[in-house]
Amino acid sequence: MRILVANVNTTESMTQGIARQARRIALPDTEIVPITPMFGAESVEGNYESYVAAVAVMETIRAYDGPYDAIVQAGYGEHGREGLQELFDVPVVDITEAAAATAMFVAHKYSVVTTLDRAVPMIEDRLKLAGLADRLASVHASGLAVLELERDPQAAIDIIVEKAAYAVEHDRAEAICLGCGGMAGLTQAVIERTGVPVIDGVSAAVKLAEGLVAQGLSTSKTRTYAAPRPKAFKNWPPAR
Amino acid sequence: MRILVANVNTTESMTQGIARQARRIALPDTEIVPITPMFGAESVEGNYESYVAAVAVMETIRAYDGPYDAIVQAGYGEHGREGLQELFDVPVVDITEAAAATAMFVAHKYSVVTTLDRAVPMIEDRLKLAGLADRLASVHASGLAVLELERDPQAAIDIIVEKAAYAVEHDRAEAICLGCGGMAGLTQAVIERTGVPVIDGVSAAVKLAEGLVAQGLSTSKTRTYAAPRPKAFKNWPPAR
Amino acid sequence: MRILVANVNTTESMTQGIARQARRIALPDTEIVPITPMFGAESVEGNYESYVAAVAVMETIRAYDGPYDAIVQAGYGEHGREGLQELFDVPVVDITEAAAATAMFVAHKYSVVTTLDRAVPMIEDRLKLAGLADRLASVHASGLAVLELERDPQAAIDIIVEKAAYAVEHDRAEAICLGCGGMAGLTQAVIERTGVPVIDGVSAAVKLAEGLVAQGLSTSKTRTYAAPRPKAFKNWPPAR
Amino acid sequence: MRILVANVNTTESMTQGIARQARRIALPDTEIVPITPMFGAESVEGNYESYVAAVAVMETIRAYDGPYDAIVQAGYGEHGREGLQELFDVPVVDITEAAAATAMFVAHKYSVVTTLDRAVPMIEDRLKLAGLADRLASVHASGLAVLELERDPQAAIDIIVEKAAYAVEHDRAEAICLGCGGMAGLTQAVIERTGVPVIDGVSAAVKLAEGLVAQGLSTSKTRTYAAPRPKAFKNWPPAR
Amino acid sequence: MRILVANVNTTESMTQGIARQARRIALPDTEIVPITPMFGAESVEGNYESYVAAVAVMETIRAYDGPYDAIVQAGYGEHGREGLQELFDVPVVDITEAAAATAMFVAHKYSVVTTLDRAVPMIEDRLKLAGLADRLASVHASGLAVLELERDPQAAIDIIVEKAAYAVEHDRAEAICLGCGGMAGLTQAVIERTGVPVIDGVSAAVKLAEGLVAQGLSTSKTRTYAAPRPKAFKNWPPAR
Amino acid sequence: MRILVANVNTTESMTQGIARQARRIALPDTEIVPITPMFGAESVEGNYESYVAAVAVMETIRAYDGPYDAIVQAGYGEHGREGLQELFDVPVVDITEAAAATAMFVAHKYSVVTTLDRAVPMIEDRLKLAGLADRLASVHASGLAVLELERDPQAAIDIIVEKAAYAVEHDRAEAICLGCGGMAGLTQAVIERTGVPVIDGVSAAVKLAEGLVAQGLSTSKTRTYAAPRPKAFKNWPPAR
Repeated sequence: MRILVANVNTTESMTQGIARQARRIALPDTEIVPITPMFGAESVEGNYESYVAAVAVMETIRAYDGPYDAIVQAGYGEHGREGLQELFDVPVVDITEAAAATAMFVAHKYSVVTTLDRAVPMIEDRLKLAGLADRLASVHASGLAVLELERDPQAAIDIIVEKAAYAVEHDRAEAICLGCGGMAGLTQAVIERTGVPVIDGVSAAVKLAEGLVAQGLSTSKTRTYAAPRPKAFKNWPPAR
Repeated sequence: MRILVANVNTTESMTQGIARQARRIALPDTEIVPITPMFGAESVEGNYESYVAAVAVMETIRAYDGPYDAIVQAGYGEHGREGLQELFDVPVVDITEAAAATAMFVAHKYSVVTTLDRAVPMIEDRLKLAGLADRLASVHASGLAVLELERDPQAAIDIIVEKAAYAVEHDRAEAICLGCGGMAGLTQAVIERTGVPVIDGVSAAVKLAEGLVAQGLSTSKTRTYAAPRPKAFKNWPPAR
Repeated sequence: MRILVANVNTTESMTQGIARQARRIALPDTEIVPITPMFGAESVEGNYESYVAAVAVMETIRAYDGPYDAIVQAGYGEHGREGLQELFDVPVVDITEAAAATAMFVAHKYSVVTTLDRAVPMIEDRLKLAGLADRLASVHASGLAVLELERDPQAAIDIIVEKAAYAVEHDRAEAICLGCGGMAGLTQAVIERTGVPVIDGVSAAVKLAEGLVAQGLSTSKTRTYAAPRPKAFKNWPPAR
Repeated sequence: MRILVANVNTTESMTQGIARQARRIALPDTEIVPITPMFGAESVEGNYESYVAAVAVMETIRAYDGPYDAIVQAGYGEHGREGLQELFDVPVVDITEAAAATAMFVAHKYSVVTTLDRAVPMIEDRLKLAGLADRLASVHASGLAVLELERDPQAAIDIIVEKAAYAVEHDRAEAICLGCGGMAGLTQAVIERTGVPVIDGVSAAVKLAEGLVAQGLSTSKTRTYAAPRPKAFKNWPPAR
Repeated sequence: MRILVANVNTTESMTQGIARQARRIALPDTEIVPITPMFGAESVEGNYESYVAAVAVMETIRAYDGPYDAIVQAGYGEHGREGLQELFDVPVVDITEAAAATAMFVAHKYSVVTTLDRAVPMIEDRLKLAGLADRLASVHASGLAVLELERDPQAAIDIIVEKAAYAVEHDRAEAICLGCGGMAGLTQAVIERTGVPVIDGVSAAVKLAEGLVAQGLSTSKTRTYAAPRPKAFKNWPPAR
Repeated sequence: MRILVANVNTTESMTQGIARQARRIALPDTEIVPITPMFGAESVEGNYESYVAAVAVMETIRAYDGPYDAIVQAGYGEHGREGLQELFDVPVVDITEAAAATAMFVAHKYSVVTTLDRAVPMIEDRLKLAGLADRLASVHASGLAVLELERDPQAAIDIIVEKAAYAVEHDRAEAICLGCGGMAGLTQAVIERTGVPVIDGVSAAVKLAEGLVAQGLSTSKTRTYAAPRPKAFKNWPPAR
C-alpha cells in the first residue's frame, strides 16, 4: 500500500526525517510518500502557522497525482485533520492522536513532551477534542523550538529526557509521547532514563494507518466528514 | 470605536446582512467595518471550507489598512479564532462563543439551531473546546443550506421555529441561539413561537466586543496567543 | 438605562466603592443605583453569611421603588443569583460569572485570586454550577479578609500580586479575575506584575448587563426561573 | 441519639408526615425532633422560596434549645445545607444527597421522580454540586405541586408510578428516588409497578445520620465548613 | 441481622482484625460473620491478585451455609463487587465506595491514604467507575505493604499521618479515608495530626449495610445485576 | 510473530470462529494461537461469569508453554485486561477498547451493538474506565444471547442491523462496533444497511497488537501494571 506522510512545515529536511522514520516502521510492501506543503512556514509553532499548514497540506494532497491508501498528518497538536477527512476517501491519521491512542494500550496514564510552551495548550486542545485526554497525565514543553531540534538533536536530549522523567515521577505518567514530528531519534534516550514505553507519533500513525487499510476501513462519510458540497470558490486555491 | 466584523464566506450580500445586524445593535459611536474574505467559498458548510475561511479571514485582516479596536468573526462553528488572537492585539470575539456565553446569562440551558446536519458536530466541537458546552442542551439542524437561508429567509422560518420549539420542549432548553450569521432576521418569529430568549450571535459578539474594549481588555499574549515567532514562509500569503 | 448594583454586605463604604467602580465603566447614559442590603453581615465570608445575604439582596430589591433595567449582584462566589432571576423580569448578572465569562474571551485559561481560604471552594462551586469552570486554572486565597482589604487596600497589593503571578507561572493562567467586589483598585498592580489581562467582576458585570439590555434579552421565564407561584408566607419578609 | 429533622416549608402537617417517616425508620433509641421553620413559604417550589427556607431552617435550629446529635434537612433539591454545616458541630444530611448516595449502593444508575417541572434543574444542580450526578439517569417531574401531594397522596400515585416506570424502561434507571419529602407513602406502589428499589430521602438520611453519629464523624471544620467568623450583623436575625 | 464481612486475602489474622473493627461499630443485634476466601493470595496488592480474590470471595460466599442480610467486601480498591451483586440477593457494600460516600457527607473534598503506590490507580479507577471521584482530592501511597502494616501498625503511623497531612494542606482534602482494610487502628493518630474527620472503610461499610437492610433495600435485579443466567461451567468452581 | 487470541468462554467452536477472523486479518507471518480458557462458562454474559473468565484466561495463558509476542483478549466488555498486563511482558489488547480506539480514527462518534441488555452497562463501564467513552454515542443490545448468535448467525442479522441503523440515525453514530467476539460475520450486512464503517473488535485488536509489536512497545511496568510481588497463595491456581 502507499501512504502519504505529510510534514506540516516547508522544511524539506524535516520531511525527509519524518519519511525515514515512517519507512523504518512501515511494512515491507508499504510505500511511504513524503509530502512537503506547497506553501507555509518553515516550522509550525502556533495557531496562525498551524492554520496555514492545515490548508497547505490539504491543497498539496489535492494536487498530488496518483493513487494512495492512507494519509498521515505528521504535525503535533496541529489543525486540519477534519478537513483532510472530508476531502479524501482514504483513512487520515494524525500523529498526535495516534501517539495518544497507542500510549493508552500500554500505560494507565501517559504524558507528552513537546517543543515550546505555546504548543502545550494546542496539544491539550487536540487531545480534548479527540476524546483522548481522559488518561493524559500532563504535557510538558522542553522550551526548544522545532528547528533547534532539527539542527542539533543531540543537544535536545538532556532537557527532553528530564521533562519525561518529571512526568513519570510527579505526574504519574506510565508512558511518554514525543510531541514533535522531529523527535523520533530521541526515543532510546528517553527509554533509558525513564524505563517507560516511549511512543513516536509518526511510527504510531503509520502502523495505525496500515491497520485501518488492512481492515478495509476508511473515514465515515456520514455527516461530519461528508465530502464538501460543490460550490464556487473565489481566488482559491492559490496559483502554484 | 471601530470593530471589524468578518464574514467567513465570500458572498458580499451576506457580509452586508451581517453588517446591518451589527450596526443595529452597536453603540452610536461604534463604527462597524464589514470584512469579506479575499478568497474562499461562497458559503462555508464543512471543515475544508472552514479551514480555508480561517486563513482567508486572517490574511484579509492582515491586509486591512487602518486602526481598529476589536474583531468579530461572524461564522458559526468555524475554525480560526485562535489564529486571529495570535495575529492581532485587539480582542477577538467569535459569534458561536458569544451567543453561548450570552445565553448562559439568561437561561439554565440553551440550544443552538443551525443550518445543515453536518454543521452540528462542528458547533458542538467549538463549544466543547471553548468550555461553554456544559449547559448546552442540544444542537439542531434545519437542513437548510446557508445560501438557501440567504435567498429566501421567509421560507426558512417555519422549520427553524419548529426545531427551536422542539429544543425547548424536549431538550429542556430555556434559550435558543440562532446558529448562522445569516439568521438574525428570524429572531422575532422564534421568540413568538417558543417564548424563550433568542440570541443572535452577531449581536451578542458586538456587545461583548464593545464591553471588552471599554474595560481595556484584550487577548492575553502570555503563552497560547503570543504573537507568531518571526520565521520564513514559502509561497505565502498568496498574491492578491 | 438604570442598573441596580447590589453589594452583598451591609458595609455602606463597600457599597460606595462598588458603585464608583460601576460608574467608572458604565456608559454615560447608564445610571448606577447602589444597593446595600437591609439586613445581614458587615462582610460575607462563608456560607451562612452568604445565604443571609442572598435573601437580603432579594428582599431589598423587592422593596426598591422605581424602574430599573438590570441587576448586578456584586458578591464573589455568593449564593442567590437564581432567586433574583425568579423574582425579577430584568437580567441578573453575578460578578463571579461575569468575570469568568469575560476572562474566557481573552485567555485560554484563567485563575481567580480571592480573599480567605474558605472562599475558594465557594467560588469553585459557583463556577462549576455555572458551567464556567472548564477553563478555570485555579482559585487562590490571599488570606486577607474582606474588610482588611477595604481598610488598607495598599497593604493587600503585595500578596494578591504574588498569588496572581503564581497562577500565571505555575497554574498556566493567562488572565486573572480579582475575586472580591472590593478588589477593583488593584487591577493595575496585578497587570504590571503579571502582564496578563486582569478582570474586575463589577466592571465585567456592568458591561454584560448593558449588553443584555441593549439586545433586549432578559432571564428566560420558562421552567428554572419562572416567577414564584403565589403562596402563603409565614413571618416573611421581616418587618423593616 | 437525637436527630433534628427539619422540614423546609411552614406547613406543620408536612413536618408531621416527615417526622412519622423518620420515626418509622429510626433506631429504637433515636429520638426524632421535627422542626418547622419559624418563617417562610407554605411549600417550597423554586429558588426564591428555597433560599428563604435555607435561612429559616438555619435560624430555627440556632434558636433550638437543647442538645442534638445530627440534623436532617428534609427538602428535595433545596439550598442551605452548606450553611447548616458551618453553623453546627453535628453531622448534616440533606435528603437529596442521602437518597442519591443510597441509590448508588443498590443500582448501577438511578432516577429521581419529583413534583413540578421547575424542581428538575434544582435537583440536577444539587446533585451535580454534590458530585453524585455521574450515575444519575434522569430527573422527571410529575407536574403535581407539593401541597397537592400532601392533600391527596392517592391521586398522585398513578402519575408518579408512570414516570418511574418510564425512567426504568427508557432512561435505564435501576433504582428510583422519590424526590419530595412528602412522597414517602408512595414507595410501595412504585416498587410494585417497576420492580426496582425505591429510595425515600427521609429514610435514607436518617440512617446515614445515625451511621455518621455511630462512627463519631461530623462535618470537617477545616476550610469550607469552618464556623462563621465573629462579625456584626445588621437587622438580623429577624425578631421572633 | 447478620452481615458477612469478607476479607479479600487469605491471611486469617487480617480477617480477624477486620471483624473486630466491624463488631466495634455494629449495632448490638448485628452479628458479624468474618469470611476468609477459600483460595487466593496472602495479601492483595495488584490486579492479578485482586481478580483472584474477586472470584474467591464469590465462591466462598456461595459455599457459605446459612442466612445473612448483607455482604461487606473489605478490600480497598479491589475488583469483584459487581459479581457479588449479581450472585446474591442481599445488599453488597464495598469499603472503598463506603468510605468515599461517607466522606462526602462530612467534607467538601476527601483524600485516600493507601499502602503501595501500585494501589493508587486501582483505587482511582474504582472510585471513577462508582461515580464517587468528583470530590476526590487525591490518593496517596504510604509505600508500606499490606502485611507490613499488619505486622507492625505502630511503625506505619508516622508515614500515613504525614501523607494525610499533606493531602489536607496541599490537595485541600477536608477528610481522609484510610485506604486499607487493616488501617482502622490508625484513625486516632491521623485525626490528632490533621484535625479532619478520618473514615475507616470497614466501619463505614457496616453502617451503610445496616442502613440498607433497615430500609428494606437490596441490589436492583433489573439489568446490570440480574442473577446470572443458568449455563454450563467447565471445571468450575474448583474442588474444595 | 505469534499472537495468543483468548476466547473468554469455554465453547471451543467460538474460539475457532474468533481464530478464523483473527487469521483472516493477520499479516502473513503472524501466527494466531487460539486459547480456550481451562475453566469457566460456556458463554460470558454478566459480571460473575466475566470475573471467572478473567482469572481463567490469566491462568490458561500462564500455563501456556512457549513464546509469544502479544495477547488479544477476545471478550466484549469483560473484566481482566489489567491482570493480563501485570502477569505478562507482551502487549495485551482488549477487543472492546481496540474497536473503540479504531472507530475514533474513522468517525466523529461511534456506537456499539451488543448481545443482551445486561451487557450494555458492562461495555459502558469498560469504555469509561479506558478513557474511550467521550465520543461513544450509544450502546445498544440486540437481545440475542451469545450462543444464539453462534448457533444461527443468519437469524441475528436483521435485529443487529436494525439497532445499528437506529444508532446512526438517532444517536448520530458515524461508525458501528460489533460488540461480541462472535459477530464478525455480520460486518458486511451492517455496512450495507447503514453505510458507515463497521468495526470488528477481533480484527481491530489483531492489527493493533501487530502494530505495538512492530514498534517494540509493550505494557509499561512502572506502577499500575508492575509484575505481581512474590507472595504465598493458598489453593491457587486450581489443579488442572
